[in-house]
Amino acid sequence: MAGGVRPARRRLSVDRRREELMAAALELFGRRDAEHVSIDDVASEAGASRALVYHYFGGKQELYVAALRSAAAQLEARLGPRGTGTPLDELAGGLTRYFDFVEEHAAGFAALLRGGPAHRGGEVGQVVDSVRHRLLRMIMKQMRVEEPGPALRVALRSWIASVETAGLDWLERRDIERPALERMLIGQLTALLGVAAGHDARVGELLDGLIRDQASRPADQERPGADG
Amino acid sequence: MAGGVRPARRRLSVDRRREELMAAALELFGRRDAEHVSIDDVASEAGASRALVYHYFGGKQELYVAALRSAAAQLEARLGPRGTGTPLDELAGGLTRYFDFVEEHAAGFAALLRGGPAHRGGEVGQVVDSVRHRLLRMIMKQMRVEEPGPALRVALRSWIASVETAGLDWLERRDIERPALERMLIGQLTALLGVAAGHDARVGELLDGLIRDQASRPADQERPGADG
Repeated sequence: MAGGVRPARRRLSVDRRREELMAAALELFGRRDAEHVSIDDVASEAGASRALVYHYFGGKQELYVAALRSAAAQLEARLGPRGTGTPLDELAGGLTRYFDFVEEHAAGFAALLRGGPAHRGGEVGQVVDSVRHRLLRMIMKQMRVEEPGPALRVALRSWIASVETAGLDWLERRDIERPALERMLIGQLTALLGVAAGHDARVGELLDGLIRDQASRPADQERPGADG
Repeated sequence: MAGGVRPARRRLSVDRRREELMAAALELFGRRDAEHVSIDDVASEAGASRALVYHYFGGKQELYVAALRSAAAQLEARLGPRGTGTPLDELAGGLTRYFDFVEEHAAGFAALLRGGPAHRGGEVGQVVDSVRHRLLRMIMKQMRVEEPGPALRVALRSWIASVETAGLDWLERRDIERPALERMLIGQLTALLGVAAGHDARVGELLDGLIRDQASRPADQERPGADG
């Protein structure tokens, strides 16, 4: 949506206009630290006036939080299961789409998870927290777990933190190939479940089931993200 | 230092006075979210005037950042190796002291790592980042690693993220005993190294060495934090 040249005063519905401004903002926050993006930059990227941006969002902080919420919704929409593979294959596929997202929103992702610029009133922290929470629910659903015991919950939260950290590390260094990193993260997941299994036998049964599903899938469904 | 009744106008050197104000602030930030701590609260906790707090720190944000830096320095001082055990035992001991710190600074730790309140200009993020960086160096030193390859670096950064997350989870839920959680985290470390070993043979050698050291220590040095 962003980047093209647009007539400055196209008539758009309110929702559509708002979305277009947000997409322009996300595009800029993805390329540069939010501290170095002005309302004028966003207006110019969207082919809109500065007054229009203020009209819709009130200010840069509101625009930032709105853009962040929109990015979070996009991320979650992408990570949903495709319903075609084993749980581990689905998770590996979700991980690939997660890293696609990290690449597309590089600067924004890094700024956000590093602690980032000028947050206000904890809203930013709440968005990040609720993404983590929903990812946890999504992974549990994928694994067909209703309510995790403490050991499983800690293992899965640890893994989500690990994936975020690997995403940051990869943006900073890029000295490991993405597919290898993704394989390593799936390996981390099963390893963390293995450790949790030592503290809760139900996690052991869960892990056994995941490995059994993986071993019994048809050979033509094999994909590189799911072993290792 | 904080909590006691003090004469309001004790004569103290500038450094000492500043430290006392910071200790009072840390005590309050540890108990309540920084958003709900006022300059007046800090002044009253330290037996000082509001004007004095402004004189030393300029405002609440500066006081918050200064207190955070002081907490980071305290944490790092605590985590240094004691030089008496195997690397894994030293790490287990460091982990116990990390969780002591988490307990003492509960509210501040949670607010900080959840994204927290009103950050400014990325200073808070920088403090958090530099703590993570120095913890990484500390762990590598403990393991006698000079410069890690990508797989080891990712594994150790993942583990640090995992420890932070487990700390947050524990403050929120407390449905797992701390010693069990700490054992699980040491188990996670060796498991993550095991995964990294699949991507870099040097990590495998490192892990073998850690396990060998562990197996050959005298029996009377055994401690519960180091296995599992």
